[in-house]
Amino acid sequence: MLIHKISEVKEKVKEWRGDKNIKIGLVPTMGALHAGHASLIKKAVETCDKVVVSVFVNPIQFCPGEDYNEYPRTLDKDVELAESIGADLIFAPSPDEMYGKGQRLSNDTLAYVVPPFFYVNKLCGKSRVGHFDGVCTVVAKLFNITGADYAFFGQKDAQQLVIIKKFVNDLNFPIEIVSCPIVREESGLALSSRNKYLSDEGKKDALVLSKILFNIKACYEKGITDVSALKETAFSYLTDKHDMEYLEFVDKDDLEDKTKADNNTLVLIACRVEGVRLIDNILLA
Amino acid sequence: MLIHKISEVKEKVKEWRGDKNIKIGLVPTMGALHAGHASLIKKAVETCDKVVVSVFVNPIQFCPGEDYNEYPRTLDKDVELAESIGADLIFAPSPDEMYGKGQRLSNDTLAYVVPPFFYVNKLCGKSRVGHFDGVCTVVAKLFNITGADYAFFGQKDAQQLVIIKKFVNDLNFPIEIVSCPIVREESGLALSSRNKYLSDEGKKDALVLSKILFNIKACYEKGITDVSALKETAFSYLTDKHDMEYLEFVDKDDLEDKTKADNNTLVLIACRVEGVRLIDNILLA
Repeated sequence: MLIHKISEVKEKVKEWRGDKNIKIGLVPTMGALHAGHASLIKKAVETCDKVVVSVFVNPIQFCPGEDYNEYPRTLDKDVELAESIGADLIFAPSPDEMYGKGQRLSNDTLAYVVPPFFYVNKLCGKSRVGHFDGVCTVVAKLFNITGADYAFFGQKDAQQLVIIKKFVNDLNFPIEIVSCPIVREESGLALSSRNKYLSDEGKKDALVLSKILFNIKACYEKGITDVSALKETAFSYLTDKHDMEYLEFVDKDDLEDKTKADNNTLVLIACRVEGVRLIDNILLA
Repeated sequence: MLIHKISEVKEKVKEWRGDKNIKIGLVPTMGALHAGHASLIKKAVETCDKVVVSVFVNPIQFCPGEDYNEYPRTLDKDVELAESIGADLIFAPSPDEMYGKGQRLSNDTLAYVVPPFFYVNKLCGKSRVGHFDGVCTVVAKLFNITGADYAFFGQKDAQQLVIIKKFVNDLNFPIEIVSCPIVREESGLALSSRNKYLSDEGKKDALVLSKILFNIKACYEKGITDVSALKETAFSYLTDKHDMEYLEFVDKDDLEDKTKADNNTLVLIACRVEGVRLIDNILLA
């Protein structure tokens, strides 16, 4: 039997395997679970028959000088939370289990999944060189290890989400990526494991990220579409407590820069407060 | 349930799926099938329940100036041969089907599986820059599309085989790589689709590759282990018809250079005859 279409090969193989059609969901995390992660696990439990939550602080996605060692590790609490929501399995490997004992973690000695340069060389990828190579590689490993049918990611890491969808599509990984909305504190602050690094004062200063985004969306809804004009609305919020890294307007699917905002425009912000790098984003839909 | 080991996750997922345990085999080829490919398909049919043969001349593994356009394409014959041996499915996608219509084929716009630099920056990888990125990427795609449990590759492309095993291991692809011995003409010439480019005269000159390797193995069996001495035995075979690219002694598993030959040593040769790039290799076991 000669077949030319990918979709037909997949159907044929499914038929051969007589798959029970059980749906397995994966929620990849670095632990230090908060209500944002909880919402992902909840969504997975609602839509899948079995749910795996992975907890792994992935060394190869941290750049030199970043917080790999300091990153909060709360495995006991994470297991408790994930199981209370209904996760069936928490997978918490050691770095040795994931990358081989004594293995040097470098692209000189390890194979990587490398996302397209166009998607990486902007936004967070510009300051975090190699970060997305590390993310895609560990995520591909987790896909292969769990054989999950669905994987759940937060819209909070918007560039990561676009890049993961892209590599899954380009490399034909047999998995569907489900994106879940950002979970915010009542104040507007987007939940992040790194918020733990902030003082009370810092948390207040951090509100500026969501305020800038909400205001841009309000201006867009009033009819302002010129990106330079929308960017200018941000300045009034900033003080010397804010070390802005970027405020960018891009297409939500392919990350192309926008000069005129529309309903497919994603606005992304990265800013340091008390030395802590925070990100947030909003879709102008 | 908290699990720390990759193997235990895989077992658990298998249990959930209630897998029928059907074995699917994949034989990835670029078509122009010869008796070497036939031996791979035969092995796959013998050891698997269902066998997919892919036929795809993969544009992204050809370097500029190489023979992508000229590469022999004989799909009708290939289908006939594969089915006569017992293949269940021949998958012959177009480049558009594999990479997307109108997609620019570059790491600027496509995600790649990139093997470790140490394994690539030697032997064939030195002259064929980007070749193994293209090979690993298409092979990963075929693994994901077919969901095969076993994939069959010829020992003829020895560096490719080591690199594929390496990326499968590093990225936890749920597939086992089966290597099959080189098939040779009675003369000793290793079968290759590119042998079609040679004149009768050229085929005679091409015998020098296997002769050099057989003689090195004979010398090793007589007790010569010094690699420089073994390399010197090659010179007497070469004429001005031979444009030698490399003759190297490496470890068969990790491609480390050897200065003293042993039973794990792989000897590889690449040489142009009539402008056609030919490769061959032998294990000193």
